[in-house]
Amino acid sequence: MTNGPRLALREGRDTTVVEVSPELAVGGRGFVVMAGPCAVEDEAQIDAAAAAVAAAGCPLLRGGAFKPRTSPYAFQGLGAQGVRLLSAAAQQRGLAAVTEILDRSDLPAFDGVALLQVGARNMQNFALLKSLAMLRRPVLLKRAASATVDEWLSAAEYLLAGGNDQVILCERGSRGFEPATRNTLDLSAVVLAKKLTHLPVVVDPSHATGRRDLVIPLSLAAAAAGADGLLIEMHPQPDRALSDGAQALLPEELHELMQRLAPVLHATGRELWTAPARRKAASR
Amino acid sequence: MTNGPRLALREGRDTTVVEVSPELAVGGRGFVVMAGPCAVEDEAQIDAAAAAVAAAGCPLLRGGAFKPRTSPYAFQGLGAQGVRLLSAAAQQRGLAAVTEILDRSDLPAFDGVALLQVGARNMQNFALLKSLAMLRRPVLLKRAASATVDEWLSAAEYLLAGGNDQVILCERGSRGFEPATRNTLDLSAVVLAKKLTHLPVVVDPSHATGRRDLVIPLSLAAAAAGADGLLIEMHPQPDRALSDGAQALLPEELHELMQRLAPVLHATGRELWTAPARRKAASR
Amino acid sequence: MTNGPRLALREGRDTTVVEVSPELAVGGRGFVVMAGPCAVEDEAQIDAAAAAVAAAGCPLLRGGAFKPRTSPYAFQGLGAQGVRLLSAAAQQRGLAAVTEILDRSDLPAFDGVALLQVGARNMQNFALLKSLAMLRRPVLLKRAASATVDEWLSAAEYLLAGGNDQVILCERGSRGFEPATRNTLDLSAVVLAKKLTHLPVVVDPSHATGRRDLVIPLSLAAAAAGADGLLIEMHPQPDRALSDGAQALLPEELHELMQRLAPVLHATGRELWTAPARRKAASR
Amino acid sequence: MTNGPRLALREGRDTTVVEVSPELAVGGRGFVVMAGPCAVEDEAQIDAAAAAVAAAGCPLLRGGAFKPRTSPYAFQGLGAQGVRLLSAAAQQRGLAAVTEILDRSDLPAFDGVALLQVGARNMQNFALLKSLAMLRRPVLLKRAASATVDEWLSAAEYLLAGGNDQVILCERGSRGFEPATRNTLDLSAVVLAKKLTHLPVVVDPSHATGRRDLVIPLSLAAAAAGADGLLIEMHPQPDRALSDGAQALLPEELHELMQRLAPVLHATGRELWTAPARRKAASR
Repeated sequence: MTNGPRLALREGRDTTVVEVSPELAVGGRGFVVMAGPCAVEDEAQIDAAAAAVAAAGCPLLRGGAFKPRTSPYAFQGLGAQGVRLLSAAAQQRGLAAVTEILDRSDLPAFDGVALLQVGARNMQNFALLKSLAMLRRPVLLKRAASATVDEWLSAAEYLLAGGNDQVILCERGSRGFEPATRNTLDLSAVVLAKKLTHLPVVVDPSHATGRRDLVIPLSLAAAAAGADGLLIEMHPQPDRALSDGAQALLPEELHELMQRLAPVLHATGRELWTAPARRKAASR
Repeated sequence: MTNGPRLALREGRDTTVVEVSPELAVGGRGFVVMAGPCAVEDEAQIDAAAAAVAAAGCPLLRGGAFKPRTSPYAFQGLGAQGVRLLSAAAQQRGLAAVTEILDRSDLPAFDGVALLQVGARNMQNFALLKSLAMLRRPVLLKRAASATVDEWLSAAEYLLAGGNDQVILCERGSRGFEPATRNTLDLSAVVLAKKLTHLPVVVDPSHATGRRDLVIPLSLAAAAAGADGLLIEMHPQPDRALSDGAQALLPEELHELMQRLAPVLHATGRELWTAPARRKAASR
Repeated sequence: MTNGPRLALREGRDTTVVEVSPELAVGGRGFVVMAGPCAVEDEAQIDAAAAAVAAAGCPLLRGGAFKPRTSPYAFQGLGAQGVRLLSAAAQQRGLAAVTEILDRSDLPAFDGVALLQVGARNMQNFALLKSLAMLRRPVLLKRAASATVDEWLSAAEYLLAGGNDQVILCERGSRGFEPATRNTLDLSAVVLAKKLTHLPVVVDPSHATGRRDLVIPLSLAAAAAGADGLLIEMHPQPDRALSDGAQALLPEELHELMQRLAPVLHATGRELWTAPARRKAASR
Repeated sequence: MTNGPRLALREGRDTTVVEVSPELAVGGRGFVVMAGPCAVEDEAQIDAAAAAVAAAGCPLLRGGAFKPRTSPYAFQGLGAQGVRLLSAAAQQRGLAAVTEILDRSDLPAFDGVALLQVGARNMQNFALLKSLAMLRRPVLLKRAASATVDEWLSAAEYLLAGGNDQVILCERGSRGFEPATRNTLDLSAVVLAKKLTHLPVVVDPSHATGRRDLVIPLSLAAAAAGADGLLIEMHPQPDRALSDGAQALLPEELHELMQRLAPVLHATGRELWTAPARRKAASR
């Protein structure tokens, strides 16, 4: 593997702490849940989502604006306007924002975004990776649906080799033969990535399974396996979602997830990042 | 799915409790760890393994005697003599025994075995399933490396339809493209099987990954996801194992696994079955 | 690959010619098409099928009697009675018969069968392979849906190591992620098996694809790739088939297949085995 | 499949003939072989390759200049200089040139290129697809390693919906579990794409298998299955190739391929495009 990852290798180091915002670090002792809708649909929807995310105690709001849709006839997202709505909704609730970037020419639209997501379909879009490497802004790099762990880490290496070490890896399921789920969540890859590299690793059980009813148990599993956080789809009204409603948690389910995560993390010597806890810590 | 599983479906029922032995039930509140070597090699090896399994507090000793090896030139196991050594070693330590059966004509050799394992390669050996259905003895049914969840549950249905409802399902990894692990552990399938059926589900992270260093984190993940137990390879001297040494835990790692499982199970409202706890409970 | 195939390796040898019947050899210059329904349903159906197979010029009649069905509630085949109907129908038309065996205890029922099929689900049913190894009768060994080429050849090695070198390999598609076909036909595996071993290799495009409309083009491809024959589903009335009707050719499509195969085989220096050609050759 | 392909659907139409150059059409009666090295390495290498490609009678020279390499430390190609060397070598031998484009900002470098290749890793790089849709220049769209046929055709639909119907589809192997080949060539997908759409479909057996010794038999299979052409790696000195030498044909093997393709195509009612034949036809 002479051409595999180098700068990403752990080699005895602690996990890199990625400073997503001044008060939010991924990769440290705190376990970070990022949540929100698949797509930003309109102001009311993203505001309701931000309120629910904040109420559940999650620090990061997700929401797609530039959507990489399989079909040209599917809803393509609100683009720059969607990013603005997302950022505004996040800011109003004291949340950081994460959203996907498809093309470097769209970069100016992403100023208010704390964490830039490279989606699974673009994991080996090396032109995009090279331009993000020069930015030195936090990047969430999703594993492609059929990438080996070595290919995933090699994609991250494009960012590190270009000078950007603010990289969070995200497992979101591999393509397999099982028709009951959209993809097959691969927690072995999460454990492997944690062992091999010093980068934080988060898990997206929503896209991995495509099923709301599997998200909570697999989130608990990801936490127990040693992941550093989660990327969760939550929609204030999943039945009306323009995309992927079947996999979005309801606000009350996001709340339940947070309640059930805390003791599992505690049992493994970690801590759930929650807004009230942080505020309390800050006031001491 | 008109021809899919019927008797195995949960339909609101509690999980079936499979009475592996008079004092050992799988599927109840207790989480059961079955451990031991890939293969019974000789008396000294299986006795040392049984001692380590008992010392760690696990109630079930595993060990292969009839081995389904890919090549006719690989070690094929000790056969009936291996089953005898396994049963004797288990009995001496107060453990139940689990081992794989390949052919119904070998059944007389399995009298001392509490739990009959049907391996992944035989999941759709319907002649074997039909003969085990008539036995009414506990069966551990592994998922084939490329079986869908529906096919796995339909194989279990052969046992139930034949009159044997003492069935424990076991997920052991699906065939995938990742070269860093032997198979891809599929915890979504575990969650699905728990939701769809009333059968207990255990997880074999040793065969799923083929790597000792992934076994503990994935065991914790399986527990957090809601599995009812684990099937773990442990060898007193993995370096000298005749098969699959690279995936076997050391005795001290099995001990560590038990230590780390207990709080995770507690955090999810369950309890680790351990011999001392049971003895204490029995004496009350 | 110290434990991989040995006796099956080509090592410079010509392809083994398997004498399925006194006048029918697989593995020589002639390309052999075996055809018939998925399952023997009743006497009228298998007689009509045999007539159509003979009319198309194919030398072998296929038809399942012991069916390895995913669900216990699906049609399980006519068993020994089905084998008798198949053999009688074949004999009446001057055809050899091929059908699947699931369990060695059923062997007495297979006396009139020229070629014993081991299905994909039983490729690693080593108890069955060991009993067939002692028989010295021609065996058709299907590749399991997720077997590597090495595992497939190692399964064949069980037959050869046990003393039976009358083995024909059959590729029938691997499990993949594509929903438009049942499995993914893997012609690379056919070319590899031909290079690595001296065993004849045939292709089953019907089970591989599950779609009638793909069978003819993929049959031509298999012939051009160097396969030694085909296993084709053909049903006199596919709409009324008890199983797998969607993939069965109509009698006239089987005829078309034979017409289109002949020139492709000729272009690659081979010859289509057809009954009239053989009769002509014999009368010289 | 309300959001699936629309403009790409066949719906009774003849195959679209893509005019790669004034005298070279893909999708008509002629079967087109595109050949050349994985990467343009230097002037001498690409000139030798062009000479061999022309000598074999192939009309198109392939060669990578912007290389999408898994690792940032692997040879990344000669970039714009590589495209110039490729175009010059092609022009000198009367060949058209095909090479991969990774980013729309590189477009000015591709003026001398007849056919723009979108690689498997960029099949769902929708920003790139949208910019190529506006160009109305011929595009070769490779299927991603784990794309379903529907996803592949939907990616093509991005080009057609944007106004560019000069699209050639290219199957290059799917990611699977078989370690003996790099990917699994999926000829069913070729037959399906031909049935479902009116676009020409070519096959790349070199990348699909990663093995020189499988290229010729699988090329013959692709031709028999109904493909419209091939993309073949050929290197004047494979042992010295900077990338993928193990899968490149030798010049004499490319010659052999052309010799063996002609009769197979003739047997299926098609014709191999070769330079001498074309010159003869033109002079009439």
